[in-house]
Amino acid sequence: MDLVLGIDIGGTKTKLGLVNKEGHSIVNTFFRTKEYPVLTDYLDRIERAVEELKKLCNDDDNLLGIGIGAPNASSKRGTIENAANLIWKGIVPLVELMKQRFDVPIKLMNDASAAALGEMLFGNAKDMDDFIVITLGTGLGAGIVANGKLIEGYDGFAGELGHVDLTIGDGRLTGLGVKGGLEAYVSATGLKRTIMYMQSKYTDDSRFRSIAYNDLHGEEITKAADEGDKIAIKAFDFTGRHLGFALANFTAITRPEAFFLLGGLTESDKWIFDSTKKYMDKYLLDIYKGKVKLLKSGIHGKNAAIAGAAALIWNEQNR
Amino acid sequence: MDLVLGIDIGGTKTKLGLVNKEGHSIVNTFFRTKEYPVLTDYLDRIERAVEELKKLCNDDDNLLGIGIGAPNASSKRGTIENAANLIWKGIVPLVELMKQRFDVPIKLMNDASAAALGEMLFGNAKDMDDFIVITLGTGLGAGIVANGKLIEGYDGFAGELGHVDLTIGDGRLTGLGVKGGLEAYVSATGLKRTIMYMQSKYTDDSRFRSIAYNDLHGEEITKAADEGDKIAIKAFDFTGRHLGFALANFTAITRPEAFFLLGGLTESDKWIFDSTKKYMDKYLLDIYKGKVKLLKSGIHGKNAAIAGAAALIWNEQNR
Repeated sequence: MDLVLGIDIGGTKTKLGLVNKEGHSIVNTFFRTKEYPVLTDYLDRIERAVEELKKLCNDDDNLLGIGIGAPNASSKRGTIENAANLIWKGIVPLVELMKQRFDVPIKLMNDASAAALGEMLFGNAKDMDDFIVITLGTGLGAGIVANGKLIEGYDGFAGELGHVDLTIGDGRLTGLGVKGGLEAYVSATGLKRTIMYMQSKYTDDSRFRSIAYNDLHGEEITKAADEGDKIAIKAFDFTGRHLGFALANFTAITRPEAFFLLGGLTESDKWIFDSTKKYMDKYLLDIYKGKVKLLKSGIHGKNAAIAGAAALIWNEQNR
Repeated sequence: MDLVLGIDIGGTKTKLGLVNKEGHSIVNTFFRTKEYPVLTDYLDRIERAVEELKKLCNDDDNLLGIGIGAPNASSKRGTIENAANLIWKGIVPLVELMKQRFDVPIKLMNDASAAALGEMLFGNAKDMDDFIVITLGTGLGAGIVANGKLIEGYDGFAGELGHVDLTIGDGRLTGLGVKGGLEAYVSATGLKRTIMYMQSKYTDDSRFRSIAYNDLHGEEITKAADEGDKIAIKAFDFTGRHLGFALANFTAITRPEAFFLLGGLTESDKWIFDSTKKYMDKYLLDIYKGKVKLLKSGIHGKNAAIAGAAALIWNEQNR
């Protein structure tokens, strides 16, 4: 069977899987990115992970290539550049370094752009020419498709929606030093910051009054909202307001048929989707109101990012 | 000679010209849009203008088609819908109505998108795959090109950058009821509003202290700035800050190689270009800083919009 190795490099985890042409990850594994601050150690760890995965495959399985999704990646240059949410600073020539270790075609792309390609090839955007995928993880990324093609931009750095500023330079700081950047509000980290903010703004009692910032986890915030915790509920409303406002703005730019949300924060399900939809419709121009879809990814479960990365290679095969 | 009729429908003027395949408007004319609040009167006036233009042509000149640029136009539907800066409200099925009067191919597009097509066919974007044209007239419009193709969006209403909100719902009102929309700050009208704002904010003496809002004209503001009027200089700085900030944000979305500014407000030349460039570079993410061009349109003078409209038909011919 032909397979593609998909690698999703995230701020927290690096996920790897061997993906068939339907987008299913047949075997997969992960390790913690932060444990490998030295780049050569990290690449060694990737090699070991690939060996592990290969052992789980049949002898006649054939590796077509490696697709990699990563934050702040330039598809045109094969580099990761100044990624706020990764440990390696500066410019990482990842494709070049990987080619020294693997003798197959290797493609690198912004993780969210890879996810958009995955959604188009394997997911719910199969019949769409104009859509945007928003990934909500440690940060916020986006893959924009218009006229049936991914927008990569002049140097491959399009889709940095997490750093679009909503506040004309007067809001929360992001990891890239942008004041008011969207991901400072809308991401797993953003939600935690909002739990802090809501405790400053309101007097409601809350389970979070006795939990420190560093001990906060997203799942706990969802659970608290389910149980009626007012600080958690207000935090989701605030998050949805910022995302809905941003999506309304993005609509006026490329006018997508739909937005797809994926990543950790979407596990909060109705808490993130309902408030985002409400505010998006509130802020949309009349000509768009009620006409823009907010959808879940059609790529199943936790392997969406791996499938997206693998789509970089499968996309070439299908041509 | 083969010619295309280009029509630019603006809030103030309607301009018409017969355009050759190099993008030059051989003969042209205009009339005031606002004098024709009844749509059939307006279409009659267009017919008369076309007759005038034809009289100035040779007998063997051949009309290939009519290209029309207008605000809030949907190329996919052939309609102008709820245009804030036009007198006709609701949905105007312009292509259908024009077809009853003219027996040639007719195409309609958002005026700024038409300008982008013009820039690509006749102007300074001939070798660019990724760029954005910003038109600064009564309002603010935009034509976005990515991967060498105009982004029209799902229903033809992409590029409404004038209604992108910079202030999370807490700024100046636009004609479409958007609070904080870019065109409320950056446009001929926006500049006039800023002259008012600066008189409220500062105590500087200024020639504008004795001129009422309705008597204000853009050329006068440029002249005042040239002469050192502090309110005018502050107004241009403020305008450039808002535009520069917006262009920095737009860069993070489609990552254009260049922005082209055109329209009435660009006649203020350095006053608008210098301040916009300064703030764009200030607000750009580090990965883009100093790498995004801010350019003048390569389509000459006052017929840029006509050439852009004509490009809708010429673009088809060249395929």
